Amino acid sequence: MHGAPGTTKWSQLSFQQDVGAAAPAFGSAFSAGIKAVNGSALRDMLRMAQVPGMVNFGGGLPAPELFPMDRIAQASAQALEKHGWRAVQYGTTEGFLPLREWLAEHTCPGAAGVTPEHIQIMTGGQQSLDLVGKIFIDPGDTVLVETPTYMGAVQSFVPYRPHFAAVPTDDHGIEMDALEALLADLAREGRTPKFIYTIPNFQNPTGRTLSLERRERLLDLTAQYGVFVVEDDPYGQLRFSGEHLPSLAELMLRRTGGDPDRSHVVYCSSFSKTLAPGLRDAWVMAARPITERLVLAKQGADMHTPTLNQMIVTELLPLLPQQVDKLRHSYADRAGHMLAALERELPAGVSYTTPQGGMFLWLTLPEHVNTTAMLPRAVERQVAYMIGECFHALGGGHNTMRLCFSTASPQDIDRGIAALAQTIHAEL
Amino acid sequence: MHGAPGTTKWSQLSFQQDVGAAAPAFGSAFSAGIKAVNGSALRDMLRMAQVPGMVNFGGGLPAPELFPMDRIAQASAQALEKHGWRAVQYGTTEGFLPLREWLAEHTCPGAAGVTPEHIQIMTGGQQSLDLVGKIFIDPGDTVLVETPTYMGAVQSFVPYRPHFAAVPTDDHGIEMDALEALLADLAREGRTPKFIYTIPNFQNPTGRTLSLERRERLLDLTAQYGVFVVEDDPYGQLRFSGEHLPSLAELMLRRTGGDPDRSHVVYCSSFSKTLAPGLRDAWVMAARPITERLVLAKQGADMHTPTLNQMIVTELLPLLPQQVDKLRHSYADRAGHMLAALERELPAGVSYTTPQGGMFLWLTLPEHVNTTAMLPRAVERQVAYMIGECFHALGGGHNTMRLCFSTASPQDIDRGIAALAQTIHAEL
Repeated sequence: MHGAPGTTKWSQLSFQQDVGAAAPAFGSAFSAGIKAVNGSALRDMLRMAQVPGMVNFGGGLPAPELFPMDRIAQASAQALEKHGWRAVQYGTTEGFLPLREWLAEHTCPGAAGVTPEHIQIMTGGQQSLDLVGKIFIDPGDTVLVETPTYMGAVQSFVPYRPHFAAVPTDDHGIEMDALEALLADLAREGRTPKFIYTIPNFQNPTGRTLSLERRERLLDLTAQYGVFVVEDDPYGQLRFSGEHLPSLAELMLRRTGGDPDRSHVVYCSSFSKTLAPGLRDAWVMAARPITERLVLAKQGADMHTPTLNQMIVTELLPLLPQQVDKLRHSYADRAGHMLAALERELPAGVSYTTPQGGMFLWLTLPEHVNTTAMLPRAVERQVAYMIGECFHALGGGHNTMRLCFSTASPQDIDRGIAALAQTIHAEL
Repeated sequence: MHGAPGTTKWSQLSFQQDVGAAAPAFGSAFSAGIKAVNGSALRDMLRMAQVPGMVNFGGGLPAPELFPMDRIAQASAQALEKHGWRAVQYGTTEGFLPLREWLAEHTCPGAAGVTPEHIQIMTGGQQSLDLVGKIFIDPGDTVLVETPTYMGAVQSFVPYRPHFAAVPTDDHGIEMDALEALLADLAREGRTPKFIYTIPNFQNPTGRTLSLERRERLLDLTAQYGVFVVEDDPYGQLRFSGEHLPSLAELMLRRTGGDPDRSHVVYCSSFSKTLAPGLRDAWVMAARPITERLVLAKQGADMHTPTLNQMIVTELLPLLPQQVDKLRHSYADRAGHMLAALERELPAGVSYTTPQGGMFLWLTLPEHVNTTAMLPRAVERQVAYMIGECFHALGGGHNTMRLCFSTASPQDIDRGIAALAQTIHAEL
């Protein structure tokens, strides 16, 4: 032990100082931003899911048995063979050019104005949200989110200390009259939101899809009030029923004559749900003034997305249509099976969404049921779900839950939904 | 083109509104944090280096011909074979447990109190700096940095809006009397710095190493004043002369009887300089209250470091001693060759550091020479360097430059240093 004058005793980061008066309160060393962040319920759910016998509808994982493992191994070997040391050397912050070229061509097919300069590669969709938050949000800025919304986005934005304002949704997504009224109210208070965060396709957590008419109106309203649109679209390719709808980014490009530099839509998507999430490869398509700021933010955040992983994804691009088809069919089966089980098992008074794609559906129970309080009783019956409260940035949702259908077998769905129905019955 | 009422014309993110008065000034949409970030000169240097014939001492890349490519390809195939879908599924935010176990054992050898809970895996060392900034810095907080310091760290911290205070250094690292005086001054103003950022081994940019005596005194002073120490140690393994010095983290563990939870040192290191940077695998070792906050920050930043990459590094761990040996010998040769060329070619009045490891050395020219202004004239002679100014968080360093010796061949070193000497001669 070192005994020089001036050394101190430390106790759990509280400076207990034995020299002089300069000691700070170390309990307060952490930033206000990080203190405002709550742990992710999703992570705790992942832990809970590891009990043997548990049917876990609470996670949000893509089905691992559908990952194209042989092709991924092949792609990795090919990338290293083809690119040699370049596959593991520092790369450019913007991302691997062939991948950006492909994304410029395919993100909004036919929009010739989109170039690689409008594409920023990200280390997973979560990084897109973090860096969008970083380049836009000053403390006290207003950010609009859907009710309910993806809690991971809230967690990315919170360290930048925005005020959240919540927009109600129904079966067709954001309620536009309510949004207009909210924007008008905020404008009267002099609070123009920096952006609205929305997941138009098969939303996490509800599985709902924003209708075409509302997409157009969302662009009108946000343009009118000067609010950016952060369009998060990780599930858009995973439609298994109904007709494909153009993204907000694509609709906006039609309005600007194909010029992405006049679009106020920041489009975020990812290969996590179409190829495999552990590669952490995602992208943002946006106007150049935005991608230029994202590059600056990313330099300081992680310099660049791992080179090898971008090359692996690039090798896998020809596989994508067939892989996405496989996912669509499989998720359609699982969703159908879960919807049939819900229809069969659930008591009256419980409603649920009917997703046309993605991985999730959403249950609303009678007002007096609290799904957070009920969870341990469900777990006793060996079924887990994600509590609805955690998807509400401003509270609420106590009688709701999210179910994930992407990973469960038909047998597990039958057993799990039966157990869930018994739990709810007992609660009523 | 869509003609609904309320649509607007956009021009480079300036809302030119044709309805109502609600239009914001969109030029001001970006956060104060990102507006404060300057582009990295390093990136521009990387571009400049791509001219044929240029001898580029300006970069900071490890030598790609020394990457263990065959073993990396093997490790990737093994990881995918051994772990199957787990290699590309979502993983825990803390990181791959076998890798964290190894790091807990090897980061401070013999410190039995270090557990995987004290280890957070990061997506490259840059992310360690970003998230340390995020969990500690509130706008207006003071952060101490060395003069000169790694500009990438400054770029990570700037979005969180600290005030920087700069500590002078000499050939043995931070000048401790100056640090003590600065801490006392700041204390009188009621400004306790959140942390001091330091690179004790073969510092970037100077190549200098903090002496053992000063390491102990740095721990004394920071403990006395209640200032965390962010120890950035990417190069520590790359010592090619002199004796190994214990890290600040290790010295602090000796003081706490091996208890990392009573240490105020946040230790950051990386596999970028010992294996390959494009894998983006790094780690932080710190007290649990700190790693717990880092986990929260990382959830929102990128969820987790790519699973496959962590597994590849884990497969490569047995190779590490032999790989590090190879690097040490090679970098020793290159540094020796560059030092000989500098000794032979440079005019009087130019001084330079003699690094005992790492990748860099530092030139100080006569006061009246401006290395930024001189750079185009050096480039005309086909040699590039990194201007010293960009390593000075608070300005200064106009007559300094960083030279990187890790990637140049002996022939290029001879040619490049001769060209540099001619440029300097012409300047004097």
